[in-house]
Formats: sequence, structure tokens, C-alpha cells
Amino acid sequence: MNKDYSILFSLVVEGRWKAVTLELEKMNEVDAAAFLEEVSHEDAITILRLMDKDRAARIFSNLSDGTMASIIQKVTGDEIRLIMDRLASDDAVDMLQEVPANIVKRILANVKSEDRTTLNEFLRYPEASAGSIMTNEYLVLRKWMDVRAAIEHIRRFGSDSETIYTCYVTDAENRLEGVVSVKNLLLASDKAVVEDIMERDVIFAETLDDREEVAHTIARYDLLALPVTDSERRLVGIITVDDVIDVITEENTEDFEKMAAMAPSDKPYLKSSVFTLARNRFLWLLVLMVSGMITGGILARYENAFSVLPVLVTFIPMLTDTGGNAGSQSSTMIIRGLALAEIDDRDVLKVFWKELRVALVVGAGLAAVNFVRLMLVGSGGLLVALTVALSLYATVIMAKTVGGILPIAARKCHLDPAIMAAPLITTIVDAFSLVIYFSIAVRLLGI
Amino acid sequence: MNKDYSILFSLVVEGRWKAVTLELEKMNEVDAAAFLEEVSHEDAITILRLMDKDRAARIFSNLSDGTMASIIQKVTGDEIRLIMDRLASDDAVDMLQEVPANIVKRILANVKSEDRTTLNEFLRYPEASAGSIMTNEYLVLRKWMDVRAAIEHIRRFGSDSETIYTCYVTDAENRLEGVVSVKNLLLASDKAVVEDIMERDVIFAETLDDREEVAHTIARYDLLALPVTDSERRLVGIITVDDVIDVITEENTEDFEKMAAMAPSDKPYLKSSVFTLARNRFLWLLVLMVSGMITGGILARYENAFSVLPVLVTFIPMLTDTGGNAGSQSSTMIIRGLALAEIDDRDVLKVFWKELRVALVVGAGLAAVNFVRLMLVGSGGLLVALTVALSLYATVIMAKTVGGILPIAARKCHLDPAIMAAPLITTIVDAFSLVIYFSIAVRLLGI
Repeated sequence: MNKDYSILFSLVVEGRWKAVTLELEKMNEVDAAAFLEEVSHEDAITILRLMDKDRAARIFSNLSDGTMASIIQKVTGDEIRLIMDRLASDDAVDMLQEVPANIVKRILANVKSEDRTTLNEFLRYPEASAGSIMTNEYLVLRKWMDVRAAIEHIRRFGSDSETIYTCYVTDAENRLEGVVSVKNLLLASDKAVVEDIMERDVIFAETLDDREEVAHTIARYDLLALPVTDSERRLVGIITVDDVIDVITEENTEDFEKMAAMAPSDKPYLKSSVFTLARNRFLWLLVLMVSGMITGGILARYENAFSVLPVLVTFIPMLTDTGGNAGSQSSTMIIRGLALAEIDDRDVLKVFWKELRVALVVGAGLAAVNFVRLMLVGSGGLLVALTVALSLYATVIMAKTVGGILPIAARKCHLDPAIMAAPLITTIVDAFSLVIYFSIAVRLLGI
Repeated sequence: MNKDYSILFSLVVEGRWKAVTLELEKMNEVDAAAFLEEVSHEDAITILRLMDKDRAARIFSNLSDGTMASIIQKVTGDEIRLIMDRLASDDAVDMLQEVPANIVKRILANVKSEDRTTLNEFLRYPEASAGSIMTNEYLVLRKWMDVRAAIEHIRRFGSDSETIYTCYVTDAENRLEGVVSVKNLLLASDKAVVEDIMERDVIFAETLDDREEVAHTIARYDLLALPVTDSERRLVGIITVDDVIDVITEENTEDFEKMAAMAPSDKPYLKSSVFTLARNRFLWLLVLMVSGMITGGILARYENAFSVLPVLVTFIPMLTDTGGNAGSQSSTMIIRGLALAEIDDRDVLKVFWKELRVALVVGAGLAAVNFVRLMLVGSGGLLVALTVALSLYATVIMAKTVGGILPIAARKCHLDPAIMAAPLITTIVDAFSLVIYFSIAVRLLGI
């Protein structure tokens, strides 16, 4: 991304394809792919065709799903077979999910029949499931192999595997019996048998598990790969740590977007069209605007109060903003805690109690600052100062407890805490804080 | 965390330590450590003392830094040596950063002198640098070794390494010359020489690089480990992918906290004290409350306007909320893009232009909805409807462009975009939107 591709670009402009190819051969495949993302798909195809087939395939597999999909729509059936033959099954599935149905058909028509069966099967796993991100390129050992035979097996069959560092031991029915790392194989004596060095208490996922759960498991146990089984514990794939890093980054981006009231997108910002960005943002803004109108309606009920004492209006931004900020702090902590599985549904009372105490401390400080300030420089006198300080205190307490509980409540109702709690919290707190404020004002000031 | 430890807890309560130990021997070390986090430090020490030394050390290394630090303060000098001897250098450094200076002294007094030198050196790297998270347990090969000799070397010396899967090739001055994976070693013929199969174009970090940059590099190139060199390219350590996952998660949590106007914390929510939580939240709430007062001051200048036409007040929440939400959407997208290095400082004009167009589209939609609604059910007539719709349109445009540019401006001033842009955006937008609103009102309505 930050590499300097200017020489390469000028070679492309001049149509010096052979020189481009030679330059790309010297580069890391990831960087070469990043360069191809920046040229037209036609140019990318010209360049890839001139390269060594294996290297071209490896560079291709580092392209974004969208670029892969555009390129594959434009090449010959033979080339499709060549590419698909070399693409890891998880990358192939990702790409197939991007292209229109008629192109999927054309691609599947051009791959080997056993690949077609696998791909069709993998494509059926629900989005964001373990099955949808796994690959079927892994190494299987038998438990009666000795270390020498196992290493020999790895050396013969390892080149097509996504990883060789974790090998799986299965029985005749393909049920997962154990896992053995190449580290343990290498550190054991040649005569040791796989059965004796394999880990039997295998940590695994099932195909329908959520990919976020898979990421937690890999992170928690510091794994390089996690085996995936069907419901009968038959091994069907593996998920490697590099893919999990991408999952973590995507899930975090999604949470950031949801918490800022946007529909999640999968393209980087600069590559998203104005229309896509506008569409992702409009709906939530509309929903929240309508909620804002309701708040306006609440405010209208107190028109009498602020007609009599217009100075009351000037404290509204400070009150609602502080309430909104206090609530966002709490909801953000809880949403993040839920996402990292540090907090679960049963902790609702603990969270309430903790937020209440934090609010009592923080709210007292803020209210005191406000009271002193209004007594020193305010024009409204003691009762107005008291009204504002009390309202602020009550608002902070309300905002923090609602902010703490709402995400857990959303989760309990099987709603996404990030999307249900974060954008709504400011609006909810706004409405409540105005009610609190004017109720106190009406009583204390007798208006 | 979600495991059921109830049987273990009752064994601890009954003081049946041997039975506890036996149960823990059967568990994964990560889960065993998670259990020890839940008992008192004294009980944890009792249990660890009864276990096999190596296993106890491995479980110990999976404890949180805080628990490690408390335990090590309470054990004997011999036990300290035993623990430190088995702890990877990165875990040791993390732990040492947690304990008071006098305990660091005691620990360092009890380790082997070469470990003391290394630890002292590692402790000097700045927080959040590559040097501060690297480990010095890695495997070095020589380029003249053949594959058989290299594998033999790995088998003899690999047990103390953080990873054996990536080996480093250095010259006589310890300068990094190449990197070779165990996969390439195993897939090559026995007679091949390391020099011929090693990758010479090594991707590496320097000790002072930011750990977030390290995470990007490892994620971008799908690495299992990244070598770290000093400024003269001498190899001094490695950073493994599992540590990078923790870095990514921590950095994301920090960004969530900063964007919700909180000082970042390193403890999970439920383990943080009320005082810590209150302290982390108070300062920003105070700063933003004061800004809210300034907004109130702006509002006071228009007291005349809303005394004449109190209905104007009822649109304030809707206007400021929509502005705040529109601004947060934009700033969140840009902050995230900057964090993922998808956007850089030079993109400021591109971002401005994109946000402007998105705002024109989104703002038009929202303003239209508002106008129609006010014409149908509002009490203020055409001019009020026009005032509100126009103000909303201008507010959305202002909010989105400010929200897009502010994070980049913060970065350019070497400030953290997450902390400078996100909490402030709502407050800034509030103030501007009120000025826009009342300026338009005064002009259109002639008040």
C-alpha cells in the first residue's frame, strides 16, 4: 500500500509488459498483488499471463475478492481451471461468493469434478460460520505411524497444504482422534509413534460455529490452526491463524461501524462509492432523526417553562451532551466486554451495580463543578444552579445505568449489542435527561 | 472463562490440594491458568508448588501479568529463579513492567546473570515498541548448513524456542541474512543447502518500530513470526503471531475506549475497580461538559429569538443529534481507515470531496423528510419548516466534512485521531449546528 510503485506504473503505461513481469518476479507476492489492484483488470490479466504459472496463481490468491472475481470473469475456461486448481479452497469460496450466479456456474463447469463437489459443499455453509472460512487442504497422519514415517509423509504431501505445522490424526471413519504439531514430531525420537505424542484433548470447532468464536478460541489457546468437524466429529477442514487475524480485523471494523450508526461495509473507505457510503449511513440517520423528533415532542410539553425562564434552554446542550457521553462510555465498555467474552449475560446485576457506583462518583464531581460555576458566574441564582446540578447528577446516573444494561438486554433478546445499544443510547438518554431536567425545574422553580 | 470450574472450586474450599493438582494436570494449560486466576494468590501458589515443575511454569506463563506479579512477590528466591528460567523473555518483560521497582530488583537478583543482562536490555525499550514485545528465544541457522544438518540443529535446540517454524540465518556479526521456514526445509531435498532455499528479501521490524506497525506487517504478509533487528540490522529478537493477535485486540479496545471519551485501561471491565473506571471517565466528561457550557453560551446569544418563537427550541435535539450522528459516522470511518493504514495523511482532499458528496445526498434526504413532515403536522407554517430543513441540510454537510477532516488534521499534528477527533466531534458539531440554525432562523423568520 505504502510501497512506491511509480516505476512499475510507468512501465505499464509504456506497455513494457515483459519488464513489468520481471520487476514483479522480484517482489513479495503480497506486494505484487497490491500493485495489480491498482492497474486495470485487463492490464492485470496481461501481466499475469506473462508470468510463471505457479507464481501468477500465488499472486492471484493475494488479490482482493472483488478483483479476483472481475479477473476470472474475463479469462478462458482453461485459465479458470488453472487458477482454481491452485487456489486454496477458502480463497476460492470467498471469491465465488463475490461473483454473479452465472459466473459461478461457468467457473464450476471448468474445475475438476472433485473440486466442484467440495466447492458446492463449502458454498452452502452460512456466512460468518466456521465452515465458510475453512480450507480442506490439511495433512492427516495415522496414529500407528512412527516419527520418521510421519515426517516422510509430510515431506511428500505437504506442498499442497495450507499449513504443515499442525497435522491431524483421524480414524477410519475420518473422526478426529488427535492433533500433533511438527514441533513435537521433530523434538521426539525417530522411533516414537504418533499415537504417543499426539494431543488427544483436541480443541476444535464445528462447521456452524460463529467465526468470531473461532477467533476467540485460536487467540485464547495460541493456536496456529483449528480443526473443524461436522456434527459427528468428522474432520472436514481447518482454519489457520492468518485468516483469523483478518476475521478479527473485519469484526472490529464492523463493530466500529455499527456503534457509529452505520450499516457495515466490506470495502475500504477510499474504494467505496459515494452511493454505497450514503446508503450505509442514511437509514440509521433517519431512524435517529425520527427519535430526535420524539425528543422534540417531549420538549414541546415544557414550552411553558422555558417561555417563562428562557435561560433554562441554554443548559440543554450541556445536559444532553454530558448524558450522551456518560452513556456512551458505559455502553462502549460493555459492548466491548461482550465482544471479547469478558462479560456475559449473567453479569447484568454486577454491571448495574458497578455502573451505579461509578455514576455516583463521576456524577457528583460533574454536578459540583457545575454548581460552583453557576453560583460564581451564573445569572440565575441558587435555585437555577441547584436545578442544573441536580439534573446533571440524575442524568449521569440514568445514562450510565441504561448504558450498562442496554447492551446486555439487546444480547438477551438475540439482537446485536453494537447495533442496538450504541446508536440508540444518545437518543434515549437525551429524551430522559430532558424529562428529568424540566421535572426538577418545574418543581424547584415553581414554573 | 466459560468453563465450569465448580468441582475444582469445591476441592479448593475443602483443601484437597492433591486432587486439585490432578484435575489441573488433565486440563489445557490455558484453562488451568484461567482457573488459578479465580482463586486467591496464596491458594494458587500452594497448587503450583505441588505440580510438576515444568507444567507449573507453563501454566504460570499463561496467567495475567498482574497475577504473575502478585505471585512472584510471595515466593522464595529459588522459586523465582525456577520460574524466570522457564519464562519466555517477552512474558518475563511484561510481568516485570507490572511489579514495583523493589520487586524487580529482587527478581533480577535471583536470575542467572545472562538473563539479567537480557532482561535489563529489554526493559529499556519504550512501551508499545517492537522491542518491548519481542522474545529472544529463536533459532539461528547458518547458510552453509545442508537440510539434514539444519533439521538436526532444530531437533537439538528447538525445545527452548518460541517457534521453530521460522528459522533465521545470520552472518558472523549476527546480521540478518535470510529467513527459512521449516516447511521449505522439509519440502527440500536432504542435500539442499540453507543458502539456496532461504528467503533473502527478509521482512523485518526494528526495535523502536510501533507494535501496531508490527501487527500490520504480520497480518499483511501472513507471517508466523517477524524478526526484529537493531538499527544496524543485527538480529535481536522475534515477535510471534499469537502475541500480535493480543496486540491487535488491545489496540482495538484502546480505540473503542478513546472514541467513547475514556482513558484506555488494560484490565477487563469486571476486574477494574470502581475508582479506576471513574478516574478513566471523569476527565473527558469534564472537558466535554465545559465545551457543552460554551455551546450553552452560544445559545444564550439567541435567547431573544427563542423567547419570541419558543417552538424553535423543540427542534434543537433533533438538529444537534442528527449533526452529531452524521459527524460520528464520518469520523469513525476515517479513524478506522487511518488505523488500518487504508487512508493516509495525503488523502485529505479525497476524503473531503467524498464526504461532501455523501453529505449532499444524505442531507437532502433527511431535509426532505423533515420538510414534508413539518408541512403536514407542524404548527409553524412554511417558513419554520424551511428553516428547519435548511438548517438540517447545512448541519449534515458541516458535520460530515468536519468529521472527515478532523481525524486527518489530528494525525498531521501528531495527535491521536481516535482521542482527538471522536469525543470532540459531537461537541464541535453541536456548537456549529446551533449557530447555523439560529442564523437561518433570524434571517428567514425576521426575528
